[in-house]
Amino acid sequence: MSTGRRPTLADATRGRILFGGDYNPEQWPEETWPEDARLMREAGVTAVTVGVFSWAKLEPEPGAREFGWLDRLMDLLHEHGVGVVLATPTSSPPPWLGRLHPDSLPVTEDGRTEWWGGRQHFSHSSAAYRGHAAAITEALAARYAGHPALTMWHINNEYCTADFGDEAAARFRRWLRAKYGALDALNTAWGTAFWSQGYDSWDGILPPRTPHYLKNPAQVLDFRRFTSDMLLECYTAERDIVARHTPHIPVTTNFMPLFPGQDAWRWAEEEDVVSVDLYPDPRDPLGPQHGALVQDLTRSQARGPWMLMEQAAGPVNWRGVNHPKPRGLNRLWSFQAVARGADAVCYFQWRQSRQGAEKFHSGMLGHAGERGRTFQEVKRLGAELAAIGPAVTGSPLHADIAILHDWHAWWASAQEGRPSAHVDHPAVLHAWHRALWEAGFATDFAHPAHDLGRYRLVVVPQLYALTDAAVGNLLAFVRAGGTLVCGFLTGVADEDDRIRPGGMDPRLRELFGIRVLHEWWPLEPGETVVCDGFLGTLWSEELEAEPDAVEARYGGGELDGFPAVLRRDRAWYVSTLPEPDALRALTARIAAGAGVRPVLAGLPDRVEAVRRGELLFLLNHRREPVTVDVPGTHTDLLTGDKITDRVFLDRYGVMVLRS
Amino acid sequence: MSTGRRPTLADATRGRILFGGDYNPEQWPEETWPEDARLMREAGVTAVTVGVFSWAKLEPEPGAREFGWLDRLMDLLHEHGVGVVLATPTSSPPPWLGRLHPDSLPVTEDGRTEWWGGRQHFSHSSAAYRGHAAAITEALAARYAGHPALTMWHINNEYCTADFGDEAAARFRRWLRAKYGALDALNTAWGTAFWSQGYDSWDGILPPRTPHYLKNPAQVLDFRRFTSDMLLECYTAERDIVARHTPHIPVTTNFMPLFPGQDAWRWAEEEDVVSVDLYPDPRDPLGPQHGALVQDLTRSQARGPWMLMEQAAGPVNWRGVNHPKPRGLNRLWSFQAVARGADAVCYFQWRQSRQGAEKFHSGMLGHAGERGRTFQEVKRLGAELAAIGPAVTGSPLHADIAILHDWHAWWASAQEGRPSAHVDHPAVLHAWHRALWEAGFATDFAHPAHDLGRYRLVVVPQLYALTDAAVGNLLAFVRAGGTLVCGFLTGVADEDDRIRPGGMDPRLRELFGIRVLHEWWPLEPGETVVCDGFLGTLWSEELEAEPDAVEARYGGGELDGFPAVLRRDRAWYVSTLPEPDALRALTARIAAGAGVRPVLAGLPDRVEAVRRGELLFLLNHRREPVTVDVPGTHTDLLTGDKITDRVFLDRYGVMVLRS
Amino acid sequence: MSTGRRPTLADATRGRILFGGDYNPEQWPEETWPEDARLMREAGVTAVTVGVFSWAKLEPEPGAREFGWLDRLMDLLHEHGVGVVLATPTSSPPPWLGRLHPDSLPVTEDGRTEWWGGRQHFSHSSAAYRGHAAAITEALAARYAGHPALTMWHINNEYCTADFGDEAAARFRRWLRAKYGALDALNTAWGTAFWSQGYDSWDGILPPRTPHYLKNPAQVLDFRRFTSDMLLECYTAERDIVARHTPHIPVTTNFMPLFPGQDAWRWAEEEDVVSVDLYPDPRDPLGPQHGALVQDLTRSQARGPWMLMEQAAGPVNWRGVNHPKPRGLNRLWSFQAVARGADAVCYFQWRQSRQGAEKFHSGMLGHAGERGRTFQEVKRLGAELAAIGPAVTGSPLHADIAILHDWHAWWASAQEGRPSAHVDHPAVLHAWHRALWEAGFATDFAHPAHDLGRYRLVVVPQLYALTDAAVGNLLAFVRAGGTLVCGFLTGVADEDDRIRPGGMDPRLRELFGIRVLHEWWPLEPGETVVCDGFLGTLWSEELEAEPDAVEARYGGGELDGFPAVLRRDRAWYVSTLPEPDALRALTARIAAGAGVRPVLAGLPDRVEAVRRGELLFLLNHRREPVTVDVPGTHTDLLTGDKITDRVFLDRYGVMVLRS
Repeated sequence: MSTGRRPTLADATRGRILFGGDYNPEQWPEETWPEDARLMREAGVTAVTVGVFSWAKLEPEPGAREFGWLDRLMDLLHEHGVGVVLATPTSSPPPWLGRLHPDSLPVTEDGRTEWWGGRQHFSHSSAAYRGHAAAITEALAARYAGHPALTMWHINNEYCTADFGDEAAARFRRWLRAKYGALDALNTAWGTAFWSQGYDSWDGILPPRTPHYLKNPAQVLDFRRFTSDMLLECYTAERDIVARHTPHIPVTTNFMPLFPGQDAWRWAEEEDVVSVDLYPDPRDPLGPQHGALVQDLTRSQARGPWMLMEQAAGPVNWRGVNHPKPRGLNRLWSFQAVARGADAVCYFQWRQSRQGAEKFHSGMLGHAGERGRTFQEVKRLGAELAAIGPAVTGSPLHADIAILHDWHAWWASAQEGRPSAHVDHPAVLHAWHRALWEAGFATDFAHPAHDLGRYRLVVVPQLYALTDAAVGNLLAFVRAGGTLVCGFLTGVADEDDRIRPGGMDPRLRELFGIRVLHEWWPLEPGETVVCDGFLGTLWSEELEAEPDAVEARYGGGELDGFPAVLRRDRAWYVSTLPEPDALRALTARIAAGAGVRPVLAGLPDRVEAVRRGELLFLLNHRREPVTVDVPGTHTDLLTGDKITDRVFLDRYGVMVLRS
Repeated sequence: MSTGRRPTLADATRGRILFGGDYNPEQWPEETWPEDARLMREAGVTAVTVGVFSWAKLEPEPGAREFGWLDRLMDLLHEHGVGVVLATPTSSPPPWLGRLHPDSLPVTEDGRTEWWGGRQHFSHSSAAYRGHAAAITEALAARYAGHPALTMWHINNEYCTADFGDEAAARFRRWLRAKYGALDALNTAWGTAFWSQGYDSWDGILPPRTPHYLKNPAQVLDFRRFTSDMLLECYTAERDIVARHTPHIPVTTNFMPLFPGQDAWRWAEEEDVVSVDLYPDPRDPLGPQHGALVQDLTRSQARGPWMLMEQAAGPVNWRGVNHPKPRGLNRLWSFQAVARGADAVCYFQWRQSRQGAEKFHSGMLGHAGERGRTFQEVKRLGAELAAIGPAVTGSPLHADIAILHDWHAWWASAQEGRPSAHVDHPAVLHAWHRALWEAGFATDFAHPAHDLGRYRLVVVPQLYALTDAAVGNLLAFVRAGGTLVCGFLTGVADEDDRIRPGGMDPRLRELFGIRVLHEWWPLEPGETVVCDGFLGTLWSEELEAEPDAVEARYGGGELDGFPAVLRRDRAWYVSTLPEPDALRALTARIAAGAGVRPVLAGLPDRVEAVRRGELLFLLNHRREPVTVDVPGTHTDLLTGDKITDRVFLDRYGVMVLRS
Repeated sequence: MSTGRRPTLADATRGRILFGGDYNPEQWPEETWPEDARLMREAGVTAVTVGVFSWAKLEPEPGAREFGWLDRLMDLLHEHGVGVVLATPTSSPPPWLGRLHPDSLPVTEDGRTEWWGGRQHFSHSSAAYRGHAAAITEALAARYAGHPALTMWHINNEYCTADFGDEAAARFRRWLRAKYGALDALNTAWGTAFWSQGYDSWDGILPPRTPHYLKNPAQVLDFRRFTSDMLLECYTAERDIVARHTPHIPVTTNFMPLFPGQDAWRWAEEEDVVSVDLYPDPRDPLGPQHGALVQDLTRSQARGPWMLMEQAAGPVNWRGVNHPKPRGLNRLWSFQAVARGADAVCYFQWRQSRQGAEKFHSGMLGHAGERGRTFQEVKRLGAELAAIGPAVTGSPLHADIAILHDWHAWWASAQEGRPSAHVDHPAVLHAWHRALWEAGFATDFAHPAHDLGRYRLVVVPQLYALTDAAVGNLLAFVRAGGTLVCGFLTGVADEDDRIRPGGMDPRLRELFGIRVLHEWWPLEPGETVVCDGFLGTLWSEELEAEPDAVEARYGGGELDGFPAVLRRDRAWYVSTLPEPDALRALTARIAAGAGVRPVLAGLPDRVEAVRRGELLFLLNHRREPVTVDVPGTHTDLLTGDKITDRVFLDRYGVMVLRS
């Protein structure tokens, strides 16, 4: 990739919030396109993503090129003032690729082939796939490099596949040789002395295909790294092609939120625009908190404004029961994204499909058409986003708290044969973020090796595996005056999933005042353990601590009197997962001690306040109206109303206030 | 197949109800056979099915023929007055077929071979299988064409297998070419523009083998059609062979009830006798209703008397817990079948096996032998059926109500990625049939393209996909004065599973007074929604309707005030699934409005009345006795008793009354 | 194997209880070894198991031999007075074996390969595996035959794999030819007349690979026998090698408790020392009873003292939630094993691994190290076992009751298509043992063909399949004055899983006074059936009995008035599974009638008393202290205290009393 300055999201937005969605015109007769263009303009659509699944249309047989339809479409969109986020179509190869190259199909750990007939049936390791993907990308980039509608590049779609087949095995060996150099180093890192797994030859190494009993966890961990890296190679290969043709056009690929298959910190470094797909369940009372978490994480990865690439205007089609969005919810959640840093609010998809596997996934323009409630709400939202765009785009958010998250720590912990199968990394992450979100704090996310100097409080819900450098980073943060709180199962292993002496990094144990970590006492699902003044869930520990470090103790049961929460100066350790109210109270207390204040004091329950730049967003997540105290005089950018001290928010209501 | 008049069930019954079961003499030493024949006579057995699993015995090695034992057996049965329903043995090929032709074994969608060692391990598409099956059928038909015991032909057994292997793929392509002619037509019908699935070559088409994510639903739908058609080809090939040898002997193959693998409307057209296997759970309080549904459906397919090919005299062996039939239940359920049109009451099987996979499946003659309660009850039943046979066989049933069912609509709806995974087609069908059954109405089933003119009320529990012609048929029925009631998810798609404009066929929307179908609101399992005076389950809808069309509204929640039940003249639309009592009341009200009356007014709960020809069957499904009002004077054919106005039915009691 | 007298466990213990665990020094830098040796001595360790997973270390590439490290280790251990139980490393072949011989990998019934990367990835039928395993065993035995530390041989580890692949198929055919001689005999035994499975060629026979529907149960049964026999061949081949080199050193292989894959009666005959791995869940209230059962069974297989090869000092890592052992529990359960006949108390493993799949499985020396509670408790235990060793080792236990168990009966019953999928052989076995254990009786286990003459009472929880000889053995036992009690589903089938005439062996029916067994009435999970004075679970039966044989009747429901418990003189039949309290009362009554008395009268609940030789072990399984009446004067061997009539036991407390 060229080393010049890369374009950013601002180069695409130019002061407007991007508003639109995936548009798949190949599913419709060409006569429908003008109606689409007209309705897009009516809805305030500024950009649509085109071509995500167009490979078979662009290259109906190997080597053919059919660009005429796309030429006409892009011209039409441009005429209507709609920009194009142009996708490389490589996430769903045409049937001919699998037919001609059966080895381009992924193979599961059980040896099952993933056939064409769905999507994403490509092996990241397949030379045939990579070659054909590069060729169609090259042709696409060459043809549309100069098209005035071209706004952004969208590479592939939701990279997510793994492959345990033979071609992947060969690449895995190459990747391992590059990482370890010598076989001895691999044998050491993988602990192959256990269960007689010592390799005498690189050729003996396989992806972690299903064995008779438990897998080697270090092998699994490296395979996850390898898989993320191979997918990233696929991405960067295509990115480099388009970037060569259009150095001025930003490039993205869309993440799935908290998706376990990609090291998203690493990936974000390779993107000009960080984008994400976000589909909270409209029925989930914690849907908005999940949204906030994903938005905070994506913004932190982007280090600034980001793109909401996909959301649903109504129901999705992949849950057991797919609930529509009640009136107002689509608008509310869209504003929540903007409040938390999004400069682009997009959907899958513009026009709901009539055929295929996702025809029950909603669109901006649903089966009900123009008269449908969904489209009417989309139109209103488009107008409002257009109104606030200039005041919002490009403006930053500030947070004093960083929550640490790391894919490698997750991968190391999410394995078989652990103390409890019920400790779920994302669930623990959500629990801590929820505590802070409900208490009204602004939070960033950070990687454990990031510079943490600009935060007052660092929260580590659970980082099972930490490198030496990361441990050092945490210690330095505390030494420099920062406040640190760690949940259980943190610092247990190193980067090879090797248990630290004593069951937890000795430097961390010293930091928290832990003398001996005797045993982990995981709890049964639904079981609780009494602590001083609250109940713990999921986990407890038999710890021997320095007496002055004990902040709360377990009561009753085998752990009666043992420490539950430790504190030494600004370093806290929480050996259980307090129930939500208790964790909120605890984090609020720690934050207060660290000098951190909530965004707006005295907020009612389920009302969210976010400051972005000069603006204060108020978001009512209740189905009922609510009144909120907002000291001072403000203008609501959506209505132009002046407001003093107190505002009324309708159900699912939104205000964007400027003081 | 010859075009002459085909024989019917009446040619086999000749005024006697066929009574018997599968008889597998090859499992027993030949010394046992005379005892079997004696006991059959004692039990009133008139016909047994022989040879269903005899292939390895008839052709112990490829090309061999061993008919001697079967000659002796058929002679013996004939001497004892027992007819033979002679089966082609092609549902379980001998091990040598798989050994010599491994490609004759079916392959699952996951690529797993289904090995011999069980049964039904044949691919419908295998040329080797088809060839060997034709040869043994030819030999069997040639040998026994003139045997006096031969009563009926029974082709194969419970056709049910699918195959995703390579030979099936080749046949699938041939089937698709025949259906679509041009590849473009297939690409259009399957909506392959979605997810870049456009085929450039017939060779690129596969059975819907497991992909990475969701399958193409139209491909799945066609594969189900193809599978049903291939099995039907296997059937008709064998049928044509036996029919050539014995044009006077009727032919059947036994269905499983509401089995999803066969388009049974289409199949029934190719059968001289429609037969079914029926195994309600003796513990299921709705067992008799399930029985009634299957009997109504089978009779409707047969357009007259039908054959109960298999039921169990006691427990089966394939449930988690296999309950025996309490005293009297076998008799009760057998009479229920006769009441609803069966002219043949048979069992799997005559003598319970001592070895093999089904030795815990009961027989007419169980492990307990002659002294066992089961055999004693069978004997009594045999005598009773013999007594009523002349008055019953051949007589018709009349119904004013037709319930519509269509396998293609079911196949189209029973797929991944739908609004709710909890909407189960057979469950919805059962719910509506139950409402009518509990209210005491006689019901037929019909295909949506059938002539409906002879019905007053047509009930559509759920026909997700409807052809244009079927929609027209429904409209014409209403225009002609009929009453129509449709449940939700009806008319949503066309025959290619393409969503109709507006999410429901516009003509149907107009019929019911629906202006806009905004959203489907599926409910969580166990969740209910309040409607005017009743609770809905499973589903609800956000509808905008003509004001005069609203019959009942939702109350509370997001749908507060929205229409729940619509009615325009004689056309009703029910957008939820009312709870059983409510659905019964609603259907009773609609039926009354349509001028339909129950079979017998004022029946106690769980007592069933069925009119067949001149007879009135009373069936007490309770474990306690009951008294029933039957105005007028009647004779009970079972006892000869005269009865006036009021009858007493013992627990599980039966009466067959002639006025 | 040589025919001379084989050594026994006594040759290894020499009056000391063996105390130690698996030691895997290859996982640690050699510098750690001296610390291990020192701590072993400190903990009273007398022997460790070495080499279980050392194949790749000993033979890093095919044919290489690396014994230097093991020489040094064995010398070191010997210097510290620690004996070595030396393992053949054949349970986990090095990756090169799979790489060079892919056919040495097992294949599942679904055709899935079990790859290397875990452990036990060898096919028992692979010639390549067997050859390499013999070679490394030979080399190991030759090298260490004369080493003074060598205490015992440990062959392989937890033999457990099955193989459905082609090489296994070939051996299966050979095994079947040896068993049946002629194909006709196999066809008869397997009942292949059912479902047309008659074999015309040995080559047509396969392992019971997954078919379309149910498998042939006799084929499954023989395949289980074959699998056990093939694993046993692997074992005896290695045993014969080491026995040739060291005829004076006893040989063992470690069982998993009640493991379904091995006919452990048969295996035990081939072992000098019977050893078992035992891991009750510390949270399971019935954990101690499960322990007692396994200990009774293992002792009965050993016909004397046995070896606890593996237990956990703390948590394991393979449950959903892995609970640590509370303070004292490790000691209590270790003493329970000694009380019930163990002369060796060992662990997996000495030092907890830092890497690999089991690093969360506890060790004697855990991650917490020397200061950890676990190690401190291990040290105390080591000292106590050393103290009581001379008084305990070699001494016998006496029981008047035998519980019958047979793997073949289990294999025959644990199949698809049975009356109830909820009848679980081990669960029924546990229920009956629990009744006797809670009532305080000493129990042995026995095989149904064993000489039962030395018992007063024989309990048959459930032996679904019995040979003619076994039936004769039971009858002879009763004739000779013994008392017999049988649970339901006993004697139903013969050794080929062929149902006995009448559904139960006629001789047994006569013994119990059963005229006709009409039907089995299995119950739903959680359902109960009322009997005279108690509730039955799981099962009931519709029996016609001799009037004088009826001891208790069912009340209510379909079985109202039918016999539930039968008794004719000393022969009892129980046709349901009484609830725990009722079964305890019933067995206590029967035992009393047979003249059997509990170990110690008047014991509090959850306190266990066991007599071994001259010693009385008292074990308190409660978390609270308890007082126990023990008439007479005793000395507690652990403290030296004199005790008269009454003792106080701490929570999880243990006393070893000599009168």
